[in-house]
Amino acid sequence: MLPVIVFTPGEPAGIGPDLAIMISQQAWPAAIVVCADKNLLQARAEQLELPITIQEYKGHRPTTPSPAGTILVEHIPTAVAAVAGQLNVANGQYVVETLTRASQGNLSGEFDAVVTGPVHKGIINDAGIAFSGHTEFFANQANRNDVVMMLATEGLRVALVTTHIPLAYVTKAITPERLTQIITILHHDLVNKFAEVNPKILVCGLNPHAGENGHLGREEIEVIEPVLEQLREQGINLIGPLPADTLFQPKYLDDAAAVVAMYHDQGLPVLKYKGFGNAVNITLGLPFIRTSVDHGTALDMAGSGDINSGSCLLAINTAIDMVRASHNE
Amino acid sequence: MLPVIVFTPGEPAGIGPDLAIMISQQAWPAAIVVCADKNLLQARAEQLELPITIQEYKGHRPTTPSPAGTILVEHIPTAVAAVAGQLNVANGQYVVETLTRASQGNLSGEFDAVVTGPVHKGIINDAGIAFSGHTEFFANQANRNDVVMMLATEGLRVALVTTHIPLAYVTKAITPERLTQIITILHHDLVNKFAEVNPKILVCGLNPHAGENGHLGREEIEVIEPVLEQLREQGINLIGPLPADTLFQPKYLDDAAAVVAMYHDQGLPVLKYKGFGNAVNITLGLPFIRTSVDHGTALDMAGSGDINSGSCLLAINTAIDMVRASHNE
Repeated sequence: MLPVIVFTPGEPAGIGPDLAIMISQQAWPAAIVVCADKNLLQARAEQLELPITIQEYKGHRPTTPSPAGTILVEHIPTAVAAVAGQLNVANGQYVVETLTRASQGNLSGEFDAVVTGPVHKGIINDAGIAFSGHTEFFANQANRNDVVMMLATEGLRVALVTTHIPLAYVTKAITPERLTQIITILHHDLVNKFAEVNPKILVCGLNPHAGENGHLGREEIEVIEPVLEQLREQGINLIGPLPADTLFQPKYLDDAAAVVAMYHDQGLPVLKYKGFGNAVNITLGLPFIRTSVDHGTALDMAGSGDINSGSCLLAINTAIDMVRASHNE
Repeated sequence: MLPVIVFTPGEPAGIGPDLAIMISQQAWPAAIVVCADKNLLQARAEQLELPITIQEYKGHRPTTPSPAGTILVEHIPTAVAAVAGQLNVANGQYVVETLTRASQGNLSGEFDAVVTGPVHKGIINDAGIAFSGHTEFFANQANRNDVVMMLATEGLRVALVTTHIPLAYVTKAITPERLTQIITILHHDLVNKFAEVNPKILVCGLNPHAGENGHLGREEIEVIEPVLEQLREQGINLIGPLPADTLFQPKYLDDAAAVVAMYHDQGLPVLKYKGFGNAVNITLGLPFIRTSVDHGTALDMAGSGDINSGSCLLAINTAIDMVRASHNE
C-alpha cells in the first residue's frame, strides 16, 4: 500500500516552508500532503527561485506517489501573509490549525504518518494558546498520557525517560511506573513500527558509573534494576543499567536496537555528535506514526536558500520506513 | 630539559604491570621511572613473553631518555607476590606507597609529571586505608582543595565542574564559588601547561537547552551567566552557557581549547565515543602534572597480552607535551 505522509511545515516565518519546497524537488515512493497556506508556499518558492507546481489536496487519500516538482497542499490559510524571518502573533492560531488537521487525518486513517517541521512555542503562547510542544499536542489529541521521545541517526537510537525538565527534577521523575511505561512503549514500537525481532535495548544508569554499586547513588539498585528484572521476566531483552560514559561503544551498540537514557543531556549530545545534522525525532506511544526534524525554526535563515534539509529528508524517509514496517511490508 | 615522568602501574593484580611492560618496548623522548615491585614486573614480563631489562632507579634524576626494552624501576616491594587477576588485600598498602612515592617526587621536583595506571579503590579500602581516588589522593598530598578533572582525546578536551557524585546532588553542587574556581584553574592550566594563547572555553548549561531562557530551570540565569560575565571581565574567553546537545559540533569545537561540562554524564559519553579507547584523564590545579589512563584494572585481562595500551600511551605522551609546554619549550 502506498504510504501517505502528511507534512506540517510549522512556523510560517521560519524555514519550514522552505523545507516543504525543497523536499518537493524530488520524487518520493510515497504521497506527501503538506498542511500549509498555498500562497505562502508559492511565495517562498519564488523567493528561493525553486520551481514548484501546487496542487490542492481534495480530501481523497492519494493513490499515486508524489512526483518531483509538485506539491500537494491541504490549504489552511494564514491570518496574514507570512514574511520570512518575522514572527507574527496573528499566525499563531494557523500553526495549531495545521497540526490539528494533521493529527485528525492520522487518527481517522486518512494519513499513515505525520512529519513535523519546526514550530515556535513562544509565538503560539503569545497568541493566547497553551502549547508546550508538538509531542504534548499530539499526545493530547490522541488521548495518550505517556509517549516516548526518541532521537535516531544512522546506527543509533536514543529514547529518553525524562525530557524537557530542569536537571534538579530528574532524579525524582525516574519512578518505577514511568520507567516501566517508557520501556514497554519503546519495546512495543520497536517491534511494531520498526519490525525489530526481539530488540536488544541498552539502559543507562542514572548516576555516574551507573551508581558504582551504590557508592554514587542508589537509584540503580532501588529503582532501575528491579524494573529491568520485572520487564525481563515479561520477555523484553534488556541490558543494564550501564554507565553512560562507556555504553556508547561499538561492542555494546553494534547489535542493539535502542539505548534508553535517563535524561536529555545524558543521551542526546552523543547522538547529535554522531548524527551531525542528520538526526530525526520520533514520538513513540501514539496511535499513529510521528517523526520530526530535530532543529528549530532558524528564523534568520528562512528564505535564504542556504539551509540543510538533511534532518527533514531523514524524518520523511524514517516515517515511510515505519509505515512499511507497521504494515508488515 | 629532558622530561622525567614517573609511572605508577597501580593495582598489581590488574593490567597496570602489563602496561608498564608494554610501554617499555619502545624508546621514549623522556625518562620514565616506574614505581612498582621489580619482581612483579619481571614475572609479568615473562607471563607476557615480552623481553625486558630491569634497571633499578638510584634516586638520581635521569639525564638520558628511556631506550626500548629497558625499564627503570623505583622498587617498592609488594607484601605478597601478586597474581594476575586475583585481588589481595595484603597489597592494598603497597599501592598507596607507590602513589605516595610518585607524588613526593613530583612535589620535590625530582620528577616532572606523574602518569597513573588503574587502581582498585575497593581493595585499598578493604585494607583499612581511606581512599576515594587518585585525584583526591594527589590533591591531599599537595594540600590543594580544588582540582579539576579533565578528559582529553584528539580534538576535544572536557573539564567537569562536578565529578563522582549522585545526579541528585549535582544542581546544588554548582555554586558560583565552585564554578569560578573550576574555570579559573582550567584557564590557568590551559595557558601554563598546554601553551594555549587566549584559550576559548565553551561552557555547557546545566539544564536541557541550557534552561531555554528560564523555562527549563533558572540556574543558567542565576548562577552560570553571572559567573561567566565576571570571569570575562577578568579576560577569560568564555562562550556559553550553551545547550549540551548541540555544543559538540565542529562549528563550536573547531577553535575551542576546552569544553566545561557541569557533570559527569553530560560531557564524558561524547568524549569517550569520539575517543574510542584513546582518551586521557588529566588532573588540573595540582602543583605538578598528572595524567592517567581512562580505564579500570581489567582484572580478567591481566597477563593475557590481549589489552589495548592506547590510553596509557596517550597519557604518557600528553604528560611529556605538558612538561614541555610548562617549560616553554
